Amino acid sequence: MSKAKVKKTIVGDIDAEVLRFTAGEDTALDEVLVEVDCIGTAAHVSALASDKLPSPILTPKERDRVIGELVAIMKRARDGKFKIGLKDQDVHLAVERALTRAVGDVGRKVHAGRSRNDQVAVDLRLHGKTLLLDTMEAASALARILVSFAKRHETLPMVGRTHMQPAMPSSVGLWASAHAESLLDDLVLLKGAYDVTNVSPLGSAAGYGVPLELDRASVARLLGFKRSHANVLYASSARGKCEAAILAAMSQVMLTLSRLAEDLIIYTMPEFGYFTLPPAYCTGSSIMPQKRNPDVLELIRARAPRVLACETAVVSVVQGLPAGYSRDLQETKEPFMTGTGITLACLRVLAPLVRGLKPRKAALLAGFGPEVFATDKALDMVGEGVPFRTAYDRVKSSLDELQALDSQEIVKRRMRSGTARIDFDNLAGRVQDCLRLVRAERRRFHGAISRLLGKKYPELK
Amino acid sequence: MSKAKVKKTIVGDIDAEVLRFTAGEDTALDEVLVEVDCIGTAAHVSALASDKLPSPILTPKERDRVIGELVAIMKRARDGKFKIGLKDQDVHLAVERALTRAVGDVGRKVHAGRSRNDQVAVDLRLHGKTLLLDTMEAASALARILVSFAKRHETLPMVGRTHMQPAMPSSVGLWASAHAESLLDDLVLLKGAYDVTNVSPLGSAAGYGVPLELDRASVARLLGFKRSHANVLYASSARGKCEAAILAAMSQVMLTLSRLAEDLIIYTMPEFGYFTLPPAYCTGSSIMPQKRNPDVLELIRARAPRVLACETAVVSVVQGLPAGYSRDLQETKEPFMTGTGITLACLRVLAPLVRGLKPRKAALLAGFGPEVFATDKALDMVGEGVPFRTAYDRVKSSLDELQALDSQEIVKRRMRSGTARIDFDNLAGRVQDCLRLVRAERRRFHGAISRLLGKKYPELK
Amino acid sequence: MSKAKVKKTIVGDIDAEVLRFTAGEDTALDEVLVEVDCIGTAAHVSALASDKLPSPILTPKERDRVIGELVAIMKRARDGKFKIGLKDQDVHLAVERALTRAVGDVGRKVHAGRSRNDQVAVDLRLHGKTLLLDTMEAASALARILVSFAKRHETLPMVGRTHMQPAMPSSVGLWASAHAESLLDDLVLLKGAYDVTNVSPLGSAAGYGVPLELDRASVARLLGFKRSHANVLYASSARGKCEAAILAAMSQVMLTLSRLAEDLIIYTMPEFGYFTLPPAYCTGSSIMPQKRNPDVLELIRARAPRVLACETAVVSVVQGLPAGYSRDLQETKEPFMTGTGITLACLRVLAPLVRGLKPRKAALLAGFGPEVFATDKALDMVGEGVPFRTAYDRVKSSLDELQALDSQEIVKRRMRSGTARIDFDNLAGRVQDCLRLVRAERRRFHGAISRLLGKKYPELK
Amino acid sequence: MSKAKVKKTIVGDIDAEVLRFTAGEDTALDEVLVEVDCIGTAAHVSALASDKLPSPILTPKERDRVIGELVAIMKRARDGKFKIGLKDQDVHLAVERALTRAVGDVGRKVHAGRSRNDQVAVDLRLHGKTLLLDTMEAASALARILVSFAKRHETLPMVGRTHMQPAMPSSVGLWASAHAESLLDDLVLLKGAYDVTNVSPLGSAAGYGVPLELDRASVARLLGFKRSHANVLYASSARGKCEAAILAAMSQVMLTLSRLAEDLIIYTMPEFGYFTLPPAYCTGSSIMPQKRNPDVLELIRARAPRVLACETAVVSVVQGLPAGYSRDLQETKEPFMTGTGITLACLRVLAPLVRGLKPRKAALLAGFGPEVFATDKALDMVGEGVPFRTAYDRVKSSLDELQALDSQEIVKRRMRSGTARIDFDNLAGRVQDCLRLVRAERRRFHGAISRLLGKKYPELK
Repeated sequence: MSKAKVKKTIVGDIDAEVLRFTAGEDTALDEVLVEVDCIGTAAHVSALASDKLPSPILTPKERDRVIGELVAIMKRARDGKFKIGLKDQDVHLAVERALTRAVGDVGRKVHAGRSRNDQVAVDLRLHGKTLLLDTMEAASALARILVSFAKRHETLPMVGRTHMQPAMPSSVGLWASAHAESLLDDLVLLKGAYDVTNVSPLGSAAGYGVPLELDRASVARLLGFKRSHANVLYASSARGKCEAAILAAMSQVMLTLSRLAEDLIIYTMPEFGYFTLPPAYCTGSSIMPQKRNPDVLELIRARAPRVLACETAVVSVVQGLPAGYSRDLQETKEPFMTGTGITLACLRVLAPLVRGLKPRKAALLAGFGPEVFATDKALDMVGEGVPFRTAYDRVKSSLDELQALDSQEIVKRRMRSGTARIDFDNLAGRVQDCLRLVRAERRRFHGAISRLLGKKYPELK
Repeated sequence: MSKAKVKKTIVGDIDAEVLRFTAGEDTALDEVLVEVDCIGTAAHVSALASDKLPSPILTPKERDRVIGELVAIMKRARDGKFKIGLKDQDVHLAVERALTRAVGDVGRKVHAGRSRNDQVAVDLRLHGKTLLLDTMEAASALARILVSFAKRHETLPMVGRTHMQPAMPSSVGLWASAHAESLLDDLVLLKGAYDVTNVSPLGSAAGYGVPLELDRASVARLLGFKRSHANVLYASSARGKCEAAILAAMSQVMLTLSRLAEDLIIYTMPEFGYFTLPPAYCTGSSIMPQKRNPDVLELIRARAPRVLACETAVVSVVQGLPAGYSRDLQETKEPFMTGTGITLACLRVLAPLVRGLKPRKAALLAGFGPEVFATDKALDMVGEGVPFRTAYDRVKSSLDELQALDSQEIVKRRMRSGTARIDFDNLAGRVQDCLRLVRAERRRFHGAISRLLGKKYPELK
Repeated sequence: MSKAKVKKTIVGDIDAEVLRFTAGEDTALDEVLVEVDCIGTAAHVSALASDKLPSPILTPKERDRVIGELVAIMKRARDGKFKIGLKDQDVHLAVERALTRAVGDVGRKVHAGRSRNDQVAVDLRLHGKTLLLDTMEAASALARILVSFAKRHETLPMVGRTHMQPAMPSSVGLWASAHAESLLDDLVLLKGAYDVTNVSPLGSAAGYGVPLELDRASVARLLGFKRSHANVLYASSARGKCEAAILAAMSQVMLTLSRLAEDLIIYTMPEFGYFTLPPAYCTGSSIMPQKRNPDVLELIRARAPRVLACETAVVSVVQGLPAGYSRDLQETKEPFMTGTGITLACLRVLAPLVRGLKPRKAALLAGFGPEVFATDKALDMVGEGVPFRTAYDRVKSSLDELQALDSQEIVKRRMRSGTARIDFDNLAGRVQDCLRLVRAERRRFHGAISRLLGKKYPELK
Repeated sequence: MSKAKVKKTIVGDIDAEVLRFTAGEDTALDEVLVEVDCIGTAAHVSALASDKLPSPILTPKERDRVIGELVAIMKRARDGKFKIGLKDQDVHLAVERALTRAVGDVGRKVHAGRSRNDQVAVDLRLHGKTLLLDTMEAASALARILVSFAKRHETLPMVGRTHMQPAMPSSVGLWASAHAESLLDDLVLLKGAYDVTNVSPLGSAAGYGVPLELDRASVARLLGFKRSHANVLYASSARGKCEAAILAAMSQVMLTLSRLAEDLIIYTMPEFGYFTLPPAYCTGSSIMPQKRNPDVLELIRARAPRVLACETAVVSVVQGLPAGYSRDLQETKEPFMTGTGITLACLRVLAPLVRGLKPRKAALLAGFGPEVFATDKALDMVGEGVPFRTAYDRVKSSLDELQALDSQEIVKRRMRSGTARIDFDNLAGRVQDCLRLVRAERRRFHGAISRLLGKKYPELK
């Protein structure tokens, strides 16, 4: 939209209505993008000042001045002093205007060779990378807490259920580390989304490139991306698709969390009482002081379908769209921000909750009836050579003999031998690998941005 | 369900009704699982005969006899002679019965130390791996076709659009290879799903393991899996979740295909006529012989939301389920089979369609109006030092001067210099890497299964 | 697709592949449409023979011959002797061919003034109406069973829960009739979908009508529709949209059923034991005879998201489609058939299950702790003039006094006075109204079709 | 959550974090509920002061004082002076506190016999009713504009398409009124949702009623509801379900709008140019002044899947939830507000857009090729007695004869005779009926609330 157009729209009534309709949630959502937008612009001005250009568009001095001003805007944003108004429409114009006000004509040159399309594309990828690293870190942290909880209670008996009914001897450790391994699978998928996100779209302009010899590979390096897109049209069209890939992985995380939450909601009902939740994560009731409502867990359970809906919204907006920018793509931003925000918040609230979880041994033991041991008993016979079905029949006809069995003993044996043993080394190793990866990627990114801005990033000193 | 129960249910009327309700689509869907079910059983009997067991449950001879019979069943299934009836309920009982009929009591021992839960888990993972490799191969093949099409028409002018309206000079090559790069991103996500799938759940039994010293790591190796689950409860609970991960990647493939389809539907409308579709992939109309309806493309466009719906169905079934087997998990099978089947079929039908696609140069050139060159003209001035916004204003006031420009010349220059250049090496290299990976994984799997069955697999000679 | 085309496609390999791709699931799905397709054709031939046409296309004799043959096809279909092959592609060509074989040239004239588009449109509406009436009947029946169950156990104590935790005194009657009222809301929505479906699209041809003076209003009457579409393009474009409206209502039914199922799954866990499920609707376990797995309920719970996914698939296929027929619309058929089929089956299996449900009084009473009475006690004080918050504080500090309360007495009082009273008259009245409506609509439809075919319908005598 | 708890939570760091997590978007979303919350409370205090209660809890004077204060709060809210803070958590506590501050102890009594559950239930139903009436009015208004546009251009030729390809003679009128009839179907479904919403949950308290003789039927009347729920547990559990029903109808509206938008996006591409969009609803491009990007239409197209995702989020949150309040229900509020808000905004922006739409006759006529007339020609022959397939063959072999046909003449004939005639009376009549219904329902509601508050509502004079 041209500036003239913008000016016009805020005068007339109808036009203001339309502007509100088209800007949608952008002005609010874009607040979190100020910093990455400045970073993207810093990389672009570096490219415009490159001495590899036949005639550089900016001098090194101009570049440094612009970058200095961008850093100032970033600082203002951190202090909550940079606002995006309806007449700015979005973060890109807001930053451009602030820049032009500060550095005059040089600010206008900054726009050469790019368009809002590749600005928003680069912003969302930089933001997406940070979100993914934060999420991977939080998921690894929660996995680590679950693993250490599982280790502590490796052989603490807890009935294993099928169809939600008591079925087999099992342990608190087996239960907790199952959720941990689920998170480790999610981390594989988050990593896949990260690889797809870690690619620079800069230089794609409106999706068809620009006839300037901007070196896309080196811009990608400046920003800490692994590489640049091979095709500028895809770089531009991938908006929405990239967000969908991220949300699909987030959805898997929420799937894991919702199941952990459901388990805890059930097992903290007074009829079970297997665990005590840390009080800070429950709400009581004004009149029933003994009541501990698992509100946090219920919200996690309910937010899983919301994140899935964010994913389907984004996929559906993009499905069947022709190649090339369409305004439809704006509509992927809100579900992307919402879905990723929810996931990260749920991971972060669950970590201390699980850390504060207390198993109640008596209640756990009370959950064992004799029938829970039937299968093991039959398998003992099988070990002695009795055919499987025959063994089953014998146990079935003498269930009461199982009454006397010691669940603690049996669970200990089960967790120390046979196939139920937990491979803690594998779990711990994978958690470590994830954390190491996150740290390495963060370092690489911070290093690149520090060099680009000439300031220690993220501190901006 | 016990055998006694099964016998009962097929007598009374009410019970038969219930059996039909509970079996659902299983008997039909399971037809494709016969082979992997036999393979899983072969690995299990090998473990039961292992000399590492304190007292092996099967002798080496018994093992060989069972495996021989399993191979026979596999051959029968290939000839369409192995059927699963309602009284079998599912593939597992069907195979078990056929086995028991053939080898007598030994057949019954086969069931020791496992349950239908880990049978279906291993079947779906083996099936999922094959599906993923097939899909990765088909996606790579389509990407290769698109890349080579793009190379052939690298500089053939085609208007670049934003908002579906003519905007910038672009080329058929840029358009086609954009879709190729999209597929390459999908391949990254398919690979992530493959990594999550390539893990053996065997030994998890009903989700709580068995007190037998079955070596889960070596069973995983026998089946060509990369490793075994670290936690048997997760191995069992991951059913549904693993399918969801696969479908999420498939959904991304369909997103790519639906956009390619939409582009082709639009660009083959008589108002554009940019491409001619190979006649075999269109339908005519009885009375309008010149009409070529792009039915195949319309179906691809419409099947994308169907695959997404398969994904959401699976995720939603599993979200919030307590840990441990629930019958709910059966309901993930139909959407999993449908969604993966659709994706593979769409990839396979698009490959020859794109190969037969013919660009129509005259129509492509006719798409260019002078305004398409405005931005480039302005950027030329910028290259000469004119500030960006000023250059824009000048071009705007003399649009008619652009009339005389030669689109072929400009597009050629654009595709050979500036940021629009396509990085063909990158695209071709990534396609190669994917195909190499698929082939290596196939070899590894076939090798393992050949050793397991004592027959050259997949030939079974 | 022309006949010539069809013949060609089944020869060559590529073409057969494409035909399989484009026909999709149609040949299988269309089996259930044979009867309604014949009915639609019967109405059309009646219109073609109308003496209101300037020159009727069929003589009354020809019309009667064709209708006679259509009735014969319907009978064959009922005997399972009418099959649709891949070369027929769909039910319409299959019926047309059978007709032409039987009545020669007259069969060909039948096609005048219509197209496959309005054939499939009328088929799906006739089928949809029957499905909706069946579903409304089944939902009313289940509601009636729930209401009568609720009446029987109106004051049988059952703890009322919030956050799944014991909270208030309540009764089995309140619980059961809550699900009944939910179904009654669903019936309002099903009725809305029925109104939208009960409109005749006939005469729309390919979506643009035909220049023949076919009287659309009287054809609508012949088929028992309430009226005809006002706009032929919408009549044609509404395909998919109408199915979506039906599925949205079905989704609401499934929402109700899934919650009833979840309640029963929880309350039949041994930790609660509030109800005993009729054995035919559970499965046991080979070795744990006391175990009753609620498989039917678990499947209902899991099928709810599947029906929702069917709805979203249909909506998403149609969203953003241009007006006028596109092949995309074929893809709404499978999710439509699946989603409606699942809903009807779930309603039908739940009716006898609920009828056979047995409350276990001792377990229900054991669920009451003293804290459940706290709020009532406080409200008693409020009734005596104590301010609400003050009353709460007093009760809170003397919870042990509540121990002695008689839950049966309190629940009886609660259900007979105060706001918890169930308005059984309202519930029963609404069930009656629904059943009456279903019967009236059925009569109207059967009457119309009997007149059209000259045979007592649905008997065809 | 008790007050004590609340106070505590805002002190400690962890607790504040949890409060932020649990309050979620409530404090922001609840701003729009202040007015209906006050209205609900006014009805409740009227019931508490009823002389039918054995001992009324409020005197008539107290009631009047409270209602007076509620009106004052409503006025403050209208002036934007009533804010909900994080420590209020939600609208209910915020209003309660403001009330208690103003009227002292009487304010506390207001809470007797209800809970936040039925407060939020009644708020959402009152809000939902208003939203539905607004939406029905906006949809009727748009339908009326489309019908009058269609009447104006009833016979203006426009090619009818199938598969997006030219197929049949048609008119602008047929096209526009097809979308109108689609909206009329949506209105049937909106009405169904309205019927389900128009029921009073008051008196349900925490879902289990209260042992006070509050007359639920008369409270329902006070608030202008059609009736009261028959079952208090359902009244409470229907939260989420009712929102889902509303969103399902909204989703259908968006389906209609997205198709209208897609048509307009395509037909305003320069390659078609059938219509000119009013400039206020497009955006230009800084450098291509002739470009009119249909941003508003693209956003409508993209917002359709977002509304569908809001619906699926709500349904999925509620599916499988046990009866009785769970905190999960909070999560239905955001998608409910978002989805309904989007739908209403889209309807309202489309109305003036369609009113300003200008058909371009020359471009419309240019869209006709001779093949478009082939079917009509064949049908002419059929009218003269030639069998259908024979006629087709003849026309097919002499397509060039069709060149000379006058599309205006043919379209006029088609729209005035044959089955393509538009039943304008039906369309206009249904639009009228909807508008009348909306007005009657509004009057009824405003009358009830005016009586309740003793002020002319909605003016509050």
